[in-house]
Amino acid sequence: MLDDANPARRFGRPPGGWRLRAYAVIFESDTPAGRTFDLLLVGLILASVVVVMLDSMAAISQRWGLWFSVLEWGFTAVFTAEYLLRLACVQRPGRYARSTFGIIDLLAIAPTYLALLFPALHALIDVRVLRLLRIFRILKLTAYVAEYGALGRALWASRRKVLVFLSFVLLVVLVMGTLMYVVEGPANGFTSVPVSVYWAITTMTTVGFGDITPKTDIGRLIASVMMLLGWGTLAVPTGIVSAEFTAQRLEPDRGSRRCAACGSEGHAPGARYCCDCGARLPGSGLRGSRRP
Amino acid sequence: MLDDANPARRFGRPPGGWRLRAYAVIFESDTPAGRTFDLLLVGLILASVVVVMLDSMAAISQRWGLWFSVLEWGFTAVFTAEYLLRLACVQRPGRYARSTFGIIDLLAIAPTYLALLFPALHALIDVRVLRLLRIFRILKLTAYVAEYGALGRALWASRRKVLVFLSFVLLVVLVMGTLMYVVEGPANGFTSVPVSVYWAITTMTTVGFGDITPKTDIGRLIASVMMLLGWGTLAVPTGIVSAEFTAQRLEPDRGSRRCAACGSEGHAPGARYCCDCGARLPGSGLRGSRRP
Amino acid sequence: MLDDANPARRFGRPPGGWRLRAYAVIFESDTPAGRTFDLLLVGLILASVVVVMLDSMAAISQRWGLWFSVLEWGFTAVFTAEYLLRLACVQRPGRYARSTFGIIDLLAIAPTYLALLFPALHALIDVRVLRLLRIFRILKLTAYVAEYGALGRALWASRRKVLVFLSFVLLVVLVMGTLMYVVEGPANGFTSVPVSVYWAITTMTTVGFGDITPKTDIGRLIASVMMLLGWGTLAVPTGIVSAEFTAQRLEPDRGSRRCAACGSEGHAPGARYCCDCGARLPGSGLRGSRRP
Amino acid sequence: MLDDANPARRFGRPPGGWRLRAYAVIFESDTPAGRTFDLLLVGLILASVVVVMLDSMAAISQRWGLWFSVLEWGFTAVFTAEYLLRLACVQRPGRYARSTFGIIDLLAIAPTYLALLFPALHALIDVRVLRLLRIFRILKLTAYVAEYGALGRALWASRRKVLVFLSFVLLVVLVMGTLMYVVEGPANGFTSVPVSVYWAITTMTTVGFGDITPKTDIGRLIASVMMLLGWGTLAVPTGIVSAEFTAQRLEPDRGSRRCAACGSEGHAPGARYCCDCGARLPGSGLRGSRRP
Repeated sequence: MLDDANPARRFGRPPGGWRLRAYAVIFESDTPAGRTFDLLLVGLILASVVVVMLDSMAAISQRWGLWFSVLEWGFTAVFTAEYLLRLACVQRPGRYARSTFGIIDLLAIAPTYLALLFPALHALIDVRVLRLLRIFRILKLTAYVAEYGALGRALWASRRKVLVFLSFVLLVVLVMGTLMYVVEGPANGFTSVPVSVYWAITTMTTVGFGDITPKTDIGRLIASVMMLLGWGTLAVPTGIVSAEFTAQRLEPDRGSRRCAACGSEGHAPGARYCCDCGARLPGSGLRGSRRP
Repeated sequence: MLDDANPARRFGRPPGGWRLRAYAVIFESDTPAGRTFDLLLVGLILASVVVVMLDSMAAISQRWGLWFSVLEWGFTAVFTAEYLLRLACVQRPGRYARSTFGIIDLLAIAPTYLALLFPALHALIDVRVLRLLRIFRILKLTAYVAEYGALGRALWASRRKVLVFLSFVLLVVLVMGTLMYVVEGPANGFTSVPVSVYWAITTMTTVGFGDITPKTDIGRLIASVMMLLGWGTLAVPTGIVSAEFTAQRLEPDRGSRRCAACGSEGHAPGARYCCDCGARLPGSGLRGSRRP
Repeated sequence: MLDDANPARRFGRPPGGWRLRAYAVIFESDTPAGRTFDLLLVGLILASVVVVMLDSMAAISQRWGLWFSVLEWGFTAVFTAEYLLRLACVQRPGRYARSTFGIIDLLAIAPTYLALLFPALHALIDVRVLRLLRIFRILKLTAYVAEYGALGRALWASRRKVLVFLSFVLLVVLVMGTLMYVVEGPANGFTSVPVSVYWAITTMTTVGFGDITPKTDIGRLIASVMMLLGWGTLAVPTGIVSAEFTAQRLEPDRGSRRCAACGSEGHAPGARYCCDCGARLPGSGLRGSRRP
Repeated sequence: MLDDANPARRFGRPPGGWRLRAYAVIFESDTPAGRTFDLLLVGLILASVVVVMLDSMAAISQRWGLWFSVLEWGFTAVFTAEYLLRLACVQRPGRYARSTFGIIDLLAIAPTYLALLFPALHALIDVRVLRLLRIFRILKLTAYVAEYGALGRALWASRRKVLVFLSFVLLVVLVMGTLMYVVEGPANGFTSVPVSVYWAITTMTTVGFGDITPKTDIGRLIASVMMLLGWGTLAVPTGIVSAEFTAQRLEPDRGSRRCAACGSEGHAPGARYCCDCGARLPGSGLRGSRRP
């Protein structure tokens, strides 16, 4: 989803004419028209998702079904026009069509046409809800970028620890699920190893649906051990992410600047003078007019 | 709820007479009478909520219903008198009536009168339990203010991160819920997209009621992925809040030392020179003998 | 449970004779006999609890019931003898009998006698499981004391924050429970306000038994909000405790010692010389023979 | 599982010939052949586990059962050959056969042969899933070792705190489970003390299957308290692990500087003098110009 972070460089900004004006409105958000377009698009996407949700409720669908169809075709028409305009105004439309958001844009309109052409595919029409993913494009351009970045960096920094942990959890869940299949057996609802593994995941993650539960004494003993184990291991991903967030919060960019006079590091982000020897810090020259 | 933190400034302290005496008792808590009034009010609120709760239990209500009605009218009379007195003793009663606590005070007495006038509204009589919110007014005036403040500051400082995270969770839940609606369908309990989204929230938050559960193999596979995903993402808000609390706990006096030369704050605990202007910091004089 | 941490001071160490020998074995654990006695007692307590548990299982009880009765009377006889001996060997038996562990010791033997005298009280015989609490007395005397202490201190340091948080959760749970009672009503299982509050606690704590679940659309919407809210608030106690543990881990006794030469604080627990000026630190004189 | 971390030292590297070549491929992974062998083995293990899982599903097993049998015998043949080769190429095959991974290797092939010889043992054939544990051997030799090490060290450092906490949880769960057995009784599903303890673990860990739920008002009150308690105590293991991870993340090089005079380690980042002997620390020379 990060692959059209810079549409101008990837897809090519048109040189001028109506295409540049359309490009500025559709792909950029630093003009009033661009911001209005973004807001309008978010509104349309949310409205279209609400229609999809309401249309799936039998009681409401029976009564307002016709209106929903009309609205749906309206949304599809607008999104189709927008998709074609996007293709028309960039310099490299082929690259745009193959980008992540290009595919999402197509997925947002394709189901409606497909359901019309092949009625057998009507079950897939709710794929339209993927339109929601288009909101990410707009969110990226707003004030929340920095927050997304901080969250993303913390998760990215701990990805290997989380992967190692996840591989360990998957292994435990596979072994314990099979054990429960052997102990409880199909008679008590553990009909196969995959079903038992599903139950083990349900238990270890403390979700506990209760559609399958151990009935024998040994099964309940194993389940108890798994629950306590799951409780303990739940602490691990939380600990990993907490440590990463805490480090980011306490040391925003510790170590990035070094005092030329005394060599000390770890200065606060906004510091202009070394807090160990009082010398001017590098990179603070621009605003250093207070003490000549 | 923070908008009458200072009632004297907002609603006007009366100049004197019985209104000032009433104001001191009702709105202030630094006199013995004010404290007694607060404790009495908390007691009445709790007693009235207990009556509401007991009255809703069929077996108890049948037997003691009459007493509960009498008690309820007693509470309503007292709260009505208090509300009128509050209106009477402040300088700007209109502003008080429109404040958060003014509305809560009205909601605490209105249902009883409305249920008497319009028996059809009797179902709403349990809105009386909102009386509990009135306790917040009194709690604000006690020794726990500092703790509330620390909790509130930590949550406020992380509000943007939490909002970004929540928007991400809502998006995942909408997409996954729709996916499960397509995969499982109404036959397995996923009767509509909103119901499927409710199920997805149940699963991602590890609540797992079990009133709706996947029955097909693909549905169980998707549910397993969602549970592991929910487990992982559960770590994010915890990490955000933990980092904030840890930072507050470890650097409580970041910002307590103030540079005498340029007035900047937020110096690290071990800093000896102001990192904004390079002047010697106060409190570092004792060890400052190394560089005369 | 902390009130007989020092039995010698509280209950009086006998001056000599068989009472002192008995006291040393029963109340102290620094002699081989005392340690053997402690281990034996833990073994007996665990065995007696296992018997209580097995006796409650119908299939096993029918077959081995007689043996369990014999064993139970054996345990009761030993615990009674021990209780009388404890009373006999301390200087102030009355004070011992009224202490926390004195009452637990009595509760460990009383149910068996009461069930014999008043067969109607037989249902209460499983109160015997409280014998387990007696293990705490012995655990206090072992190597785990430091760990208990660290855990306890962290929880104690954050008790006010946790209380404030709990009061907030109780309020939310009461208001939301009542709201669900009004919305769903007795027809959907929300039979009274207390039952609805029980459901709200089930939901907010992410336990989600599923014995009571919302059936209406509005009820499911409110439940969804509550689940997300519960997910978020779950982060708060975790954050509080994490921050406390992290602070203890990073700053074991920061600030406890102060350098007399330069006034700096925050020295590591085992430091003998000031890490700012190299002078000898107070409290390190005993081992300070390396550099005269 | 750590006991053949160094197979060369434990089992003996053969001096030369085909045994050394086989040893290098099977036990080592720093040659292209060794890495290919490891990847092949992981692939075979995963494929064999997938076959076990699919074979347990009735619908699939009926149709493809024959193919699964053929595949299974193929896997068993390969694993048997590998096991015999491992025994043949090490210097001390007896010690290898008794090591953790030697036993796991045997458990991976034994069930298939046993099920052939004694059809009565067929139920145990799914023990084959323990083959998954063999993946750990290979994972240990990859780039994730460091992450495993960091996770392991953090958990090991907090093992005593976690044990103390677990003993406390077990005690609470035993006492509360017995209490619920007394309060609810067999009529409401709490058929014995062990079953009630299983329910208590279900509740405290927030799993909440819902196969057993309290029906009486007092039972629901106790359950509510247990849920809130479980919510609170859930914070403790998370806090312990978070603190450990945060400490590792924030002070990765605590201990990296070594005093040249007395050899002590673990100096604080900002220390300039050894806190054990008062000598100047290395790495502090650059800024040590203040006190000649």
